[in-house]
Amino acid sequence: MQIVIIGSGNVAYHLAKSFVLNNIPLAQIFGRNEQDLEKIGKELHIHYSIEKLEDADLYIICVSDNSLEDVSKIITKKDCLVAHTSGSLPKELLTGEYRKASFYPLQTFSKSKDLEYKKIPFFIETENEKDKELLFELASKISDNVMESSHEKRKYIHLTAVFACNFVNHLFSRAKEISDSQEIPFDYFLPIIDETIQKVHEIEPKLAQTGPAVRNDVRVLELHEQLLKDESLEIYKTMNHSIKKMYEL
Amino acid sequence: MQIVIIGSGNVAYHLAKSFVLNNIPLAQIFGRNEQDLEKIGKELHIHYSIEKLEDADLYIICVSDNSLEDVSKIITKKDCLVAHTSGSLPKELLTGEYRKASFYPLQTFSKSKDLEYKKIPFFIETENEKDKELLFELASKISDNVMESSHEKRKYIHLTAVFACNFVNHLFSRAKEISDSQEIPFDYFLPIIDETIQKVHEIEPKLAQTGPAVRNDVRVLELHEQLLKDESLEIYKTMNHSIKKMYEL
Repeated sequence: MQIVIIGSGNVAYHLAKSFVLNNIPLAQIFGRNEQDLEKIGKELHIHYSIEKLEDADLYIICVSDNSLEDVSKIITKKDCLVAHTSGSLPKELLTGEYRKASFYPLQTFSKSKDLEYKKIPFFIETENEKDKELLFELASKISDNVMESSHEKRKYIHLTAVFACNFVNHLFSRAKEISDSQEIPFDYFLPIIDETIQKVHEIEPKLAQTGPAVRNDVRVLELHEQLLKDESLEIYKTMNHSIKKMYEL
Repeated sequence: MQIVIIGSGNVAYHLAKSFVLNNIPLAQIFGRNEQDLEKIGKELHIHYSIEKLEDADLYIICVSDNSLEDVSKIITKKDCLVAHTSGSLPKELLTGEYRKASFYPLQTFSKSKDLEYKKIPFFIETENEKDKELLFELASKISDNVMESSHEKRKYIHLTAVFACNFVNHLFSRAKEISDSQEIPFDYFLPIIDETIQKVHEIEPKLAQTGPAVRNDVRVLELHEQLLKDESLEIYKTMNHSIKKMYEL
């Protein structure tokens, strides 16, 4: 089976790498950004091109949701399977006469950070059983955790991940902004961050909540508001309001 | 040296446990809640009382910020050191003629969850050098990470921890609420949560940001808003606004 990956971003890079590490041959990595493609191609020893899309049985499009529809149009072949890796968009957004699929890896991808691919949950949706088997077989070579998911469910999986990953990382950014402003090393906070995450593995997060808001510690809440401004103050108020609502304080 | 811990909550329990595990004798654990005290006393083999406060050289008050001032008044002895464990309040809030100190462990404490005490940063503030040495020596038996901190700095340490720990845990609660609503097992999200935390150990969080907001993926942002309501929608909007501001999108 000839496989082509389209894209040169974080997802394209890590998917290509996971294929190479599991001895799944890639016919090509195709994209617009020659510099990024060259870097990936050379590191992983994969053919790359910004001009001629190779003939393939399976195209996996790993581009941003904004570009997905347009990029999908460059595949003019009919007898092939085209899958995208978006968490939120339907497979029907792919525009062409080929068979369509969703191939969604639930993970946060940064190029500079190695990943344990075996643990990444993959969610698959296809038009027919044969394509489903094909993508299950492929994903199972990379991961121990391959499942089927409708578009409806996948949207909520992605949304949950935005809260549990993207927003969590942004809280770390805002936290570091606060500690940096007082020349407090952010390393001090790594044990408490690690413990917070160990807890979510063991205890229902609703039962593990600590801090001034869940204690309704008005004096501290007011003090903290005086120390904050702008977006961090808005986050502080919104999160505390949400905590109070959840615990009916 | 005679040491008494006052309080029967999560901090009192874990501090008492860390003392016992490091062979630091405790004269007593004192508090209002007899049931909780009895549980701690029996588990850790410490004398406990709700009536008679033992005579001691050092009292460590581990109660909520709201109760701290009142509780501190029960110590009528003068020739002793009294420390509190609050992240936000000044040592001067302690009301008595004794010497005052702050003894702040930067960690999130849940009774049902074991902790690696060696890694907990302790922040100490005293009135004089001798008390500082005493508390440093004590904390160093528990932890490898003992530091001095002014009240001014400690307030910001606590505030940073609220963002990096309390709010992160609340995001997990709201995330689980979303996945539960669609009968999606929350276990699916543990690998992406673990990766988010591994990243903060290795990469500046501002550089590690992923997700629809930092890509300014308007289509997905609008879709997600349609799936959310109430507090989760408010969090979604506030966090995305803050991400856009941080990256000047």
